[in-house]
Amino acid sequence: MAPKGKTSFTLKTPKGTKDWAGPDALLRDNIFSTITNVFKRHGGMALDTPVFELREILAGKYGEDSKLIYDLQDQGGEICSLRYDLTVPFARWLAMNTDIRNIKRYHLAKVYRRDQPAMTKGRMREFYQCDFDIAGAQFDPMVADSEVLKIATEVFDDLGWKGNYTIKINHRKILDGLFEVCGVPQDKIRTISSAVDKLDKLPWEDVRKEMVDEKGLDGAVADNIETYVVRKGGRDLLESLLADEKLTANASAKAGLDDMALLLGYLEDFGVLDKFSFDMSLARGLDYYTGVIYEVITEGSAPATATSAPEAQKLQRQAKKDKKVDADEDRSNDPSVGVGSVAAGGRYDDLVGMFSPKAQIPCVGISFGVDRIFSITKARMQRESKLRNSEVDVYVMAFGGKGFTGLLKERMQICKSLWEAGIKAEFLYKVKPKLPAQFKAAEANLVPFAVILGEDELAAGKVRVKEMGLPDGHPEKEGLLVDIASLTTEIKQRLEKKANESGVPADAPAGEQEDLAQKVKDLL
Amino acid sequence: MAPKGKTSFTLKTPKGTKDWAGPDALLRDNIFSTITNVFKRHGGMALDTPVFELREILAGKYGEDSKLIYDLQDQGGEICSLRYDLTVPFARWLAMNTDIRNIKRYHLAKVYRRDQPAMTKGRMREFYQCDFDIAGAQFDPMVADSEVLKIATEVFDDLGWKGNYTIKINHRKILDGLFEVCGVPQDKIRTISSAVDKLDKLPWEDVRKEMVDEKGLDGAVADNIETYVVRKGGRDLLESLLADEKLTANASAKAGLDDMALLLGYLEDFGVLDKFSFDMSLARGLDYYTGVIYEVITEGSAPATATSAPEAQKLQRQAKKDKKVDADEDRSNDPSVGVGSVAAGGRYDDLVGMFSPKAQIPCVGISFGVDRIFSITKARMQRESKLRNSEVDVYVMAFGGKGFTGLLKERMQICKSLWEAGIKAEFLYKVKPKLPAQFKAAEANLVPFAVILGEDELAAGKVRVKEMGLPDGHPEKEGLLVDIASLTTEIKQRLEKKANESGVPADAPAGEQEDLAQKVKDLL
Repeated sequence: MAPKGKTSFTLKTPKGTKDWAGPDALLRDNIFSTITNVFKRHGGMALDTPVFELREILAGKYGEDSKLIYDLQDQGGEICSLRYDLTVPFARWLAMNTDIRNIKRYHLAKVYRRDQPAMTKGRMREFYQCDFDIAGAQFDPMVADSEVLKIATEVFDDLGWKGNYTIKINHRKILDGLFEVCGVPQDKIRTISSAVDKLDKLPWEDVRKEMVDEKGLDGAVADNIETYVVRKGGRDLLESLLADEKLTANASAKAGLDDMALLLGYLEDFGVLDKFSFDMSLARGLDYYTGVIYEVITEGSAPATATSAPEAQKLQRQAKKDKKVDADEDRSNDPSVGVGSVAAGGRYDDLVGMFSPKAQIPCVGISFGVDRIFSITKARMQRESKLRNSEVDVYVMAFGGKGFTGLLKERMQICKSLWEAGIKAEFLYKVKPKLPAQFKAAEANLVPFAVILGEDELAAGKVRVKEMGLPDGHPEKEGLLVDIASLTTEIKQRLEKKANESGVPADAPAGEQEDLAQKVKDLL
Repeated sequence: MAPKGKTSFTLKTPKGTKDWAGPDALLRDNIFSTITNVFKRHGGMALDTPVFELREILAGKYGEDSKLIYDLQDQGGEICSLRYDLTVPFARWLAMNTDIRNIKRYHLAKVYRRDQPAMTKGRMREFYQCDFDIAGAQFDPMVADSEVLKIATEVFDDLGWKGNYTIKINHRKILDGLFEVCGVPQDKIRTISSAVDKLDKLPWEDVRKEMVDEKGLDGAVADNIETYVVRKGGRDLLESLLADEKLTANASAKAGLDDMALLLGYLEDFGVLDKFSFDMSLARGLDYYTGVIYEVITEGSAPATATSAPEAQKLQRQAKKDKKVDADEDRSNDPSVGVGSVAAGGRYDDLVGMFSPKAQIPCVGISFGVDRIFSITKARMQRESKLRNSEVDVYVMAFGGKGFTGLLKERMQICKSLWEAGIKAEFLYKVKPKLPAQFKAAEANLVPFAVILGEDELAAGKVRVKEMGLPDGHPEKEGLLVDIASLTTEIKQRLEKKANESGVPADAPAGEQEDLAQKVKDLL
């Protein structure tokens, strides 16, 4: 680094953080809206908690990962830390509000982890989570769980990923049961479980090695485990497990399998069963899960994309560093793993009770990794369309010949009427703007319409409306004269037409409703 | 506090912070959407910066208030602090992105200040700011400034505050000029300026005392200042100042007055001049303003409102504490001041240059204090309507006699069709729910419609749609049978009708557009 004078600063964001601006911020906001709309459709209540918590609230919740928690400096007063996820704050809120015995809550917010950043893989120190959780004391088994999973399918379908993702599901009680049945000693169950969780990144031989060489498991026990954890499927797998008398004799395994039978039925009722894979190798890292667990995976990785040459060089350097980090952590470079899971969650019935036994309340939830979803969506979009900084509808311009006054007052008033009609509009902050400068500004941000003011037209109560980007020879290439009195109506109609042309998704077609009616009838 | 065991926790949020849930969170989200829509209508680009910055970025920007900055603990690596506002991060971003020479950006996010919290007055340690700023190197004077002020009027009009707020404006160059003219020594200008800023809370005698006794200003100079700073008005005030030859002989004052003349003209063109008060006592605390400054004030205070008896007691204790704090700080208890200003801002042409002289770019912006806006809006709303936890449209229920199966599958499928049509729906997570429990859940959250499933009706392909809360004797009190095939269409129509009845604001009426057309014609 260059030597610094008194007035010079290191102009950067802290390690593992970044600014979000322009098309990236806009795209991410659209992802947020899509997810929030799904959450609201299912009756979710918004909850917002402080970005930092008393340190003792977070203590003992994250096991080894606690070392990644950001602490605030002790400046006198309380000792606080930045939140590590949104689940523990939710549990703390439930424990504080014991009058609430059932609630669906959602929370979109940043969380903080002092992890080794790997920017090109989307691993950051500050990143967004979007959580939906259902807490309820007296619900029947697996009903809320199935709605959480239905929500997951709606989020990815609404994001346009239909047919392009799989939701792996498993059950902690099945896993715990099969480890017991296979002969894993009680005190090794959690550590063997986390070895199994690596099967999506490592071949069985490596995982076996970890179990036997590092964790001291009997080789024969490991081989027993293999016969189960390599299996995946749907109802077929469930039935073969239910037929396994050794397994069903174990109370934990039996309870888990009964839950799975209910769950698969409910997912079928919701019409989404084909999106799920019952995967015996899914174990999930966190300790607090007690029931069904799940992870959403998608095809393809999400390479970070440079928007400028210096950025490209920076990304190359970053990728090199990330590779080193991954080698250190002994991660596989299997490209099919891509950015890993894009959403994950499960049932956690005991977490709230950790704060206060009398506040105990069972919960089930899911967390969407928006930064990963963003990277993948962006990579897919960039092949298709150019991205915009903001979504302005209309650029209001003026032009004139000799003695041109600039028509600033008139541009302001036209903008005012557009704004009042809810139309997004802007104009150049110059008293006498040049026409090319105004067109350049409109084109740079892909503004779809120009409203052009000229003195003669204004005198006749008219302005010119021009659709931008029309090809030469198009009959409306030069725009059309429109009465000022009908300008906002005209613009609205054109914007609507344009939106329809670009194929905004319509509501569920009538045909689908009839199918449902038929189905409901058939059921009776 | 009770003695703590090993598994007991202090269940609270850190001092000066709070959870936002239920109706409060919903109302605040609606305020966010209203503000964001205005920002987008004016072509604002979303910018999101990290919650913490390198400490040196914040250093030297906030004067005495720097002691209120939250620091992160040094855990190895960079030294960081939580952001104190959104303006300095924006300036840092501009200084890092020197290719951007003009931009309108908005940012809604939390900021952090280790201030003495005064919960009942809405003074928190973690609170939201909503900022809109325009940076531009080559704009003509006061055009962007006037759009920022137009935005302020749209935000408060869209929030339903029309006629209920005033925007005070003044100009730093006028203030600096008049202090010079009155004989304030150069090195006392900033401190005398901040004494003047207290005139909205203290009578002139107290401010004069501070100037003379505490700050050592000559009494005659203070009396000169009085003749200016007690004045407020509109064009009349501007004209009397422009006629003041002593004042206009000062270059700074003259430049400020010329700016104000332009600004008042532009505000008139935007049709909002009546909402402004040119107020010579407005000085604003922050050092970095260089041009026009403004503050939005509204009638009435915002008492915190308790939703339960224990909360009421807590608020009383809190109010007592707050009062003590205010006494310590020698603040007035004038109830007309209420929560103070609800938005404020100004022009700051030199801030970006503090990071890097070659990145220099003039800026003007405004910051909306959402927590204060929230408190006032809530106090006004509570007189009118009950607030909801979430905005569910439909509660899907089932009932039946002997041998009732619960119709879970059918409830799930009806919900599925409603969700697919974008309708917000929920159902009870019970296999065999009791009808009263379902009605109770729907009523508790003021859900407007129930869809009721019965076996006989389903066999005929029908369900019952019931509007909740109809008075006894209403012809539709018991609901209407609807074909399942047309259920979503029926619900959508009813929701739309209900929305229209409750008076959703329509777009600008045609009459207003004609007036504009007439005005534009008249101008030519």
